[in-house]
Amino acid sequence: MTSHRSIITLTTDFGVRDPFAGIMKGVIATINREAAVIDITHSVAPGDIREAALILSVSAPYFPSGTVHTVVVDPGVGGSRRAIAVKTADCYLVGPDNGVLSWVLRDIGQATIRQIARPEYTRPTISATFHGRDIFAPAAAHLAAGVPIEALGPAVDDPVLIAYPQAERDAHEIRGEVLYIDGFGNLITNIRPGDAHGFREIAIGGATIDRLSKSYDRAPEGTLIALAGSFGFIEIAVNLGSAMRRLHAQVGDRVRVLL
Amino acid sequence: MTSHRSIITLTTDFGVRDPFAGIMKGVIATINREAAVIDITHSVAPGDIREAALILSVSAPYFPSGTVHTVVVDPGVGGSRRAIAVKTADCYLVGPDNGVLSWVLRDIGQATIRQIARPEYTRPTISATFHGRDIFAPAAAHLAAGVPIEALGPAVDDPVLIAYPQAERDAHEIRGEVLYIDGFGNLITNIRPGDAHGFREIAIGGATIDRLSKSYDRAPEGTLIALAGSFGFIEIAVNLGSAMRRLHAQVGDRVRVLL
Amino acid sequence: MTSHRSIITLTTDFGVRDPFAGIMKGVIATINREAAVIDITHSVAPGDIREAALILSVSAPYFPSGTVHTVVVDPGVGGSRRAIAVKTADCYLVGPDNGVLSWVLRDIGQATIRQIARPEYTRPTISATFHGRDIFAPAAAHLAAGVPIEALGPAVDDPVLIAYPQAERDAHEIRGEVLYIDGFGNLITNIRPGDAHGFREIAIGGATIDRLSKSYDRAPEGTLIALAGSFGFIEIAVNLGSAMRRLHAQVGDRVRVLL
Repeated sequence: MTSHRSIITLTTDFGVRDPFAGIMKGVIATINREAAVIDITHSVAPGDIREAALILSVSAPYFPSGTVHTVVVDPGVGGSRRAIAVKTADCYLVGPDNGVLSWVLRDIGQATIRQIARPEYTRPTISATFHGRDIFAPAAAHLAAGVPIEALGPAVDDPVLIAYPQAERDAHEIRGEVLYIDGFGNLITNIRPGDAHGFREIAIGGATIDRLSKSYDRAPEGTLIALAGSFGFIEIAVNLGSAMRRLHAQVGDRVRVLL
Repeated sequence: MTSHRSIITLTTDFGVRDPFAGIMKGVIATINREAAVIDITHSVAPGDIREAALILSVSAPYFPSGTVHTVVVDPGVGGSRRAIAVKTADCYLVGPDNGVLSWVLRDIGQATIRQIARPEYTRPTISATFHGRDIFAPAAAHLAAGVPIEALGPAVDDPVLIAYPQAERDAHEIRGEVLYIDGFGNLITNIRPGDAHGFREIAIGGATIDRLSKSYDRAPEGTLIALAGSFGFIEIAVNLGSAMRRLHAQVGDRVRVLL
Repeated sequence: MTSHRSIITLTTDFGVRDPFAGIMKGVIATINREAAVIDITHSVAPGDIREAALILSVSAPYFPSGTVHTVVVDPGVGGSRRAIAVKTADCYLVGPDNGVLSWVLRDIGQATIRQIARPEYTRPTISATFHGRDIFAPAAAHLAAGVPIEALGPAVDDPVLIAYPQAERDAHEIRGEVLYIDGFGNLITNIRPGDAHGFREIAIGGATIDRLSKSYDRAPEGTLIALAGSFGFIEIAVNLGSAMRRLHAQVGDRVRVLL
């Protein structure tokens, strides 16, 4: 027994209408009633592994040590992809082996990776379509209850990794892209403010911005600005407006910082 | 005192914008701070008693014994319909007596049913429009705290039951319907795979499917497939697409399985 | 140590897609794992301080004494507005000093107000764009853990107050407005039923209503009605329909009660 409640997070593409996330919480509570379950989001774009990988990697650093992060963005459910659990220096990760966990792995280095294979740690019957309920929720609940990761199944030494879209830099410019667009229409890029120190100009979608603002409201309402965003990247925004709508921007759009 | 936290679930048509579900949780916490509240969904179609009955009946089996399931889909709020609580062999149910609880009752048989009538177990003032706050949340919180169901009010022996749309079978075919459409556009039918063993063809909306697939991704992207869905019914899906959009399907659409 | 879990609520305009609310819960759990976090809503209209003030003021009365209500509707984030915490006779409030807390203050009178300024009670690094994570979540977690409000920073004696839209009354009529429109399309006014006792007529958007109904379903389906709503105000509704759509109503629309 620990002296405090353990934390399990959920990141899925289930949406908020269907009962799927609630059912996962029921399965978790049946196994481990003391765990506190925190929703990171259930609104990942359906099947969008990169978006889920990004959301998990920017969110995980703000959770307590030992948190079990559970990701169910799983277009290959019921097929041949493995179900895996990961132990890093800071946290546990549970999800399909489709790359969705790989950007956290990239950030925090060495890890123990196991296939979730032992039937004691899944539901007795496993459906072809809802491994969130039948595999990932039970595994997360057991890990949060103290089951050692090694008990879950055999070691995995070749997890699926998806390439992180690293910005590229030469003497003249940094070439990056839009990683994520938040609900306010702010464009989160993959370029770190520290790497762009003293830049001349940020170019995106035909517009240019010549400085980093200190905050949204230091610019006149409606002005396109760039600033150091809360996830550690340069963010493009419109004070009291939407940069996404202003620039008709999409994830993956190019961003150039002229040095 | 029990040695673990009790669980209360919420299933409503309140949506996620208004503060109604949050207020119910405040009322629950005021009465019973140890209960853990789990949202099943707040996005039942407004006033859709059948949808709520279905969601509850497919979700309840995955929660721990003793869970108090609270349903507030209540178009007759403030009128003459009764407020009821139910104790089954496995769980408690709390909600309006409009049929919303009846598909769980159907599944789990004999139950104790009481009207929620004693003012000690509701809020002192009861509004005409928000019994989720004034009656159902308090009753659920008290049940989760160990109040015996018999204390809530008089016995009810004629609860409102709504007909479950049972599939019909003869020697040649099974005639069923679409029970629910999930957020991925998958069509959940009311036909059990075991009842359709060795079928010739599934016919829905002008399309036919001649086998059950093992999983979504065993079919080429965009193919219309049928498979054994996670709620125990045949489900119609499109790998990486939406069967709802493909077939312009609605809840209630006919599905025929030719034997 | 207290004998029960403390409660923290969240009211934001973050929406349900982005991970921002989940990240705030991670920060809270890192500081205070015993606190229970309840979402009031994350769907305040972006930057709508009045809507957030209203939602908080109608919700707070239903939470246990000592609850820490945290509001992050903060269009001035990163600018010169202060971050504040408030202790009232009943609860704590945490949020930006932009008026968002002021309608609760109005309702419950005298309060202690402090700026959140001491770095022990915020994250060590404070971003320009996400004070929910860096200031408000930590301050709420510390208050819920028992830190005295006086420890957070200097006293504030001039908090920003936004005018509450009080209905006006003369011998002939009460002039009010639509305060809020809920997800069912019901129009919540700022006129109290007790103040309109024996009225002749309610006039809104070209329509008139000559009585208060006891409940939604006492009127034929589709009829425009008025009733005593659950927040203590006259509410305009359509039984099994939407008064908003019927009247093309918006927040701020005038409502007159002829006496």
